[in-house]
Amino acid sequence: MNTADTIFNELKNGATVAPQHPQIKELRAASYATIRLVQQLNASADPKEIRKILSEITGTAIDETVAIFPPFYINYGKALSIGKNVFINFNCTFLALGGIVIEDNVLVGPDVKILSEGHSLPPVERQSLVPGKIHIKQNAWIGAGATILPGISVGENAVIAAGAVVTRDVPANAVVAGIPAKIIRSI
Amino acid sequence: MNTADTIFNELKNGATVAPQHPQIKELRAASYATIRLVQQLNASADPKEIRKILSEITGTAIDETVAIFPPFYINYGKALSIGKNVFINFNCTFLALGGIVIEDNVLVGPDVKILSEGHSLPPVERQSLVPGKIHIKQNAWIGAGATILPGISVGENAVIAAGAVVTRDVPANAVVAGIPAKIIRSI
Amino acid sequence: MNTADTIFNELKNGATVAPQHPQIKELRAASYATIRLVQQLNASADPKEIRKILSEITGTAIDETVAIFPPFYINYGKALSIGKNVFINFNCTFLALGGIVIEDNVLVGPDVKILSEGHSLPPVERQSLVPGKIHIKQNAWIGAGATILPGISVGENAVIAAGAVVTRDVPANAVVAGIPAKIIRSI
Repeated sequence: MNTADTIFNELKNGATVAPQHPQIKELRAASYATIRLVQQLNASADPKEIRKILSEITGTAIDETVAIFPPFYINYGKALSIGKNVFINFNCTFLALGGIVIEDNVLVGPDVKILSEGHSLPPVERQSLVPGKIHIKQNAWIGAGATILPGISVGENAVIAAGAVVTRDVPANAVVAGIPAKIIRSI
Repeated sequence: MNTADTIFNELKNGATVAPQHPQIKELRAASYATIRLVQQLNASADPKEIRKILSEITGTAIDETVAIFPPFYINYGKALSIGKNVFINFNCTFLALGGIVIEDNVLVGPDVKILSEGHSLPPVERQSLVPGKIHIKQNAWIGAGATILPGISVGENAVIAAGAVVTRDVPANAVVAGIPAKIIRSI
Repeated sequence: MNTADTIFNELKNGATVAPQHPQIKELRAASYATIRLVQQLNASADPKEIRKILSEITGTAIDETVAIFPPFYINYGKALSIGKNVFINFNCTFLALGGIVIEDNVLVGPDVKILSEGHSLPPVERQSLVPGKIHIKQNAWIGAGATILPGISVGENAVIAAGAVVTRDVPANAVVAGIPAKIIRSI
């Protein structure tokens, strides 16, 4: 393991990181480097160029069937995996230090927030980063403005209604809605 | 009717469009062409230039009393109609393939999502586009972060509270709030 | 008091401003001038330059411990005060005519809306601006997509859950969630 990658691996592996961590400055610098690429992505209206810059952000080859309507925001791309035929609508934000997997055929509505890290509740540890891997399974639809919190899995074919805040795993084929999101029907 | 316009007319007329539709590539290309104009609009801080670019996006003359605080996002402008003295605050997203009418004196808060198309619930048809015309009547106020779903009418003078997700028509002079939005008072 | 500042002082002091106010054009012009600076800020991925432009927007010296992940949107900066070690994540919107105070160590999640002005409910006064000062106290965490409405105080160490719409003051050490936000626990 490359020493320079330690803090990123700790977060991807689920460890809480305190603001006193010796690599906290590298973490912040990596985010601003990512933001520089994000700004290039968001200045483009060429689907191929958008995929090319996203590939650079993630360090993987983004499939040619993936489409994003810019702007798109992400703080760190190396722990993000995106399948085939994924569509990401306008103005979505991914906090991806904790790891995000998006499988094939997932639809992501506008203004969706997929957040694989948050903070600690105890005030003295409030500034710590608390990660949790997110997994969105095949053919799920994340509705407009919905928020997926750290650690959540969304099952195959599930639907997250507009504005929902998802605080528990969502079963396959379920439709969930509200804050916190509750199952309102099964498909 | 121009053949090249068929898919746009189908959506504006309320027909579901499957991903196998022969014009689906034209639809996507039209969105990226719109996004190119949107990026020009969002690089401007000149109210006149913003209106000029929005007029180009909609193919209509936007009245000089209309104001937008950029950024503003829209996937297709030809089915959008905006009245006089309309104000649209920061960071709003309009999905406008299904048709959106905004009458005079409407106030649109920041981060509002007006979405005239969505997807089908059945997993095998999930990738289809399902449109529904939206009509926002005179002097309504759509509060910050609210979401208006396909097919909804918002009555004259109505108030949509911040964060509401509107899933049913809103009567004139009603105040609605929550997810799903419910009437909390009448003015 | 500089006459040119009157409308801004009226709003900061809590007075409702009607669209017939003689300085309403100056108010709108000040917002577009602010937006021009906001666009410069949002084109940068350099933390120092971002702070420098934010200092210009607020007319104060933003501390070197403050960090923002752009984009960030604000309509007027002179009534905004930001403490030390404040972090503001992607895509937040501040409507700041009514005055916003953010104390030290506050964490602001992505897509947060801090709104110190709104509109009147009575239809004939709907276009008026109604301000209310907002105060976010030390070490509070405003979760992703949350909305803070005019006049609200958020207490020290409080947590506003993702997607909450805060319509009442939040006590110190409380966790609030939902629309409207209710206390779900105390820390």
